[in-house]
Amino acid sequence: MPKIDLTIAEVKALAIACLLANGCNDENAEAVAEIVTAAERDGCASHGLFRLPGYVAALRSGKVNGDASPSIERLAPGVLRIDGDGGFAPLALEQGRHPLIDATREQGVAAMSLIRIHHFAALWTEVEPLVEAGLCAMACTAYLPMVAPAGGREALFGTNPLAFGWPRKVGPPVIFDQASSVIARGEVMVAARDGHDLPPGVGLDVDGNPTIDPNEVLKGVMLPFGGYKGSSIAMMIELFASGLIGERFSFEAAEHDNNDGGPPRGGEFILAMDPTRFGDNAWLDHTEKFFEKMIAIEGVRLPGARRYANREKAQLGGVQVPEELHAKIVGLIEV
Amino acid sequence: MPKIDLTIAEVKALAIACLLANGCNDENAEAVAEIVTAAERDGCASHGLFRLPGYVAALRSGKVNGDASPSIERLAPGVLRIDGDGGFAPLALEQGRHPLIDATREQGVAAMSLIRIHHFAALWTEVEPLVEAGLCAMACTAYLPMVAPAGGREALFGTNPLAFGWPRKVGPPVIFDQASSVIARGEVMVAARDGHDLPPGVGLDVDGNPTIDPNEVLKGVMLPFGGYKGSSIAMMIELFASGLIGERFSFEAAEHDNNDGGPPRGGEFILAMDPTRFGDNAWLDHTEKFFEKMIAIEGVRLPGARRYANREKAQLGGVQVPEELHAKIVGLIEV
Repeated sequence: MPKIDLTIAEVKALAIACLLANGCNDENAEAVAEIVTAAERDGCASHGLFRLPGYVAALRSGKVNGDASPSIERLAPGVLRIDGDGGFAPLALEQGRHPLIDATREQGVAAMSLIRIHHFAALWTEVEPLVEAGLCAMACTAYLPMVAPAGGREALFGTNPLAFGWPRKVGPPVIFDQASSVIARGEVMVAARDGHDLPPGVGLDVDGNPTIDPNEVLKGVMLPFGGYKGSSIAMMIELFASGLIGERFSFEAAEHDNNDGGPPRGGEFILAMDPTRFGDNAWLDHTEKFFEKMIAIEGVRLPGARRYANREKAQLGGVQVPEELHAKIVGLIEV
Repeated sequence: MPKIDLTIAEVKALAIACLLANGCNDENAEAVAEIVTAAERDGCASHGLFRLPGYVAALRSGKVNGDASPSIERLAPGVLRIDGDGGFAPLALEQGRHPLIDATREQGVAAMSLIRIHHFAALWTEVEPLVEAGLCAMACTAYLPMVAPAGGREALFGTNPLAFGWPRKVGPPVIFDQASSVIARGEVMVAARDGHDLPPGVGLDVDGNPTIDPNEVLKGVMLPFGGYKGSSIAMMIELFASGLIGERFSFEAAEHDNNDGGPPRGGEFILAMDPTRFGDNAWLDHTEKFFEKMIAIEGVRLPGARRYANREKAQLGGVQVPEELHAKIVGLIEV
């Protein structure tokens, strides 16, 4: 697949231009472009420029409010809620970030819910700034039903990602961001496009039989990672990102979505804790010993390590973007 | 294996007698017996009377303080810490329960850490009372290194269980309690005892090769559930139950433990949230719709369902305990 070279600044400018041309105001375009660019920079191409057509579809269909002006409310000493005003998640997240950091430092632990947002991004981008502020943080979101609960053959859960991060004394923070399905939806779509088989255990066909054919899985259902244990994690995420905060479960999002290809309306849940409020002043040294022990084991690396390596490379040499995708985005600007 | 019938009251009386005879004071004996009995009643035999010899070993070796008098401290508006005074976890948990419920209702979200405890029980027993008080709760604990991080062949993590519970409008709460290893340590031991093979993927032998021989896995290492995703969950649990709260990581517990067969000193982390403080008054009806949707799928049941069925049975007809185990416990009382 032919590719073109772009600097990080060029990626961001392209994203901003595309969002502005399709109904985002400056603030929303800037916030979405920021996280699209971060994903492209860190080698998460499936959450980078690749997502722009979906963002645009949701703006053009009128599902998403490109002028959204999020508002924040403190529901309890430890609970903040952001109403995203029907916009994309990034601006709401940006506006909630500092209030959440402040509340967490004050309370020791604080939760932030986001409602009336459309989430279409990688979750690590929202955990990272909290962890850089010295907090430990967890985020999750539901989507549309794609994954069957363990034992079943019918989709109920979204691919429901969970992100978690912890500050390190040395080097960048440890952050994981993982779907509750065996593999990400995007990987199944790529396998279908490229005509590859899937590893066994990823999904079932429409009749509920195991299959390694990605086209059959796309018509059928995906399975949770790790059997019933991953299914429990996926259920917990639905409860945090929907039941707890009063937003739509994945199955409800499907009932309301206009199927324009962009993200449905949904919620997000973020929890942050301040390790300095838990009574151990040596926590940063203590946990560094644990991470050192972990990476001393042959074959083990810390979650996020590959992302930081990609980031360093991109900061020096930019990124490569498929020509076809680039042309598509340019087309979305010009129309 | 020949078994004898016991009522729930007899199970508890047996446990209390055994703990009192081996150095627990009344309060500690009562608290430990309570959770041992709950496990036996709910069909979790591996965490029921079966654990008493381990509790006794830790008392007899002097590792655990049978007269422990836990103390509670509020470190931040949303953070409580219980110092378990070197005793078993149950009394500390019991004393922290109401302060945690109060703090959670007041703050919306609150965390409780337990330090200087010895944890040897099922986690759902500590989540259940919080959920019965209308809260959503999560608990986790580390142990001794038994599980290799994904990609590695050396144990670092404990089997690190995570429990989570959510209140239901109809019927008992939804609660899962699952190890971060593919299967529980106890199941590997049972397979070794009974001469059964393990399913593939449970563990590696001492040379780091996959094996289905339980004896080889016991000498080697266990694997996390769901590959690198379960490994991330296990890592997060170590960070919550050790790094965050200033207690020993599993690898540190091993450095200090006297290997008497009882539980090492460690920590536990509990998080609770009050759904009524998150802005949706209809949360209980809303989540009930989700659970109904889930159980309407053929082959799916809610986490905890089997436990409640066992409980109902035991409340009517008591439980069956292996004669050999019963005799062993009686022996521990008489010596």
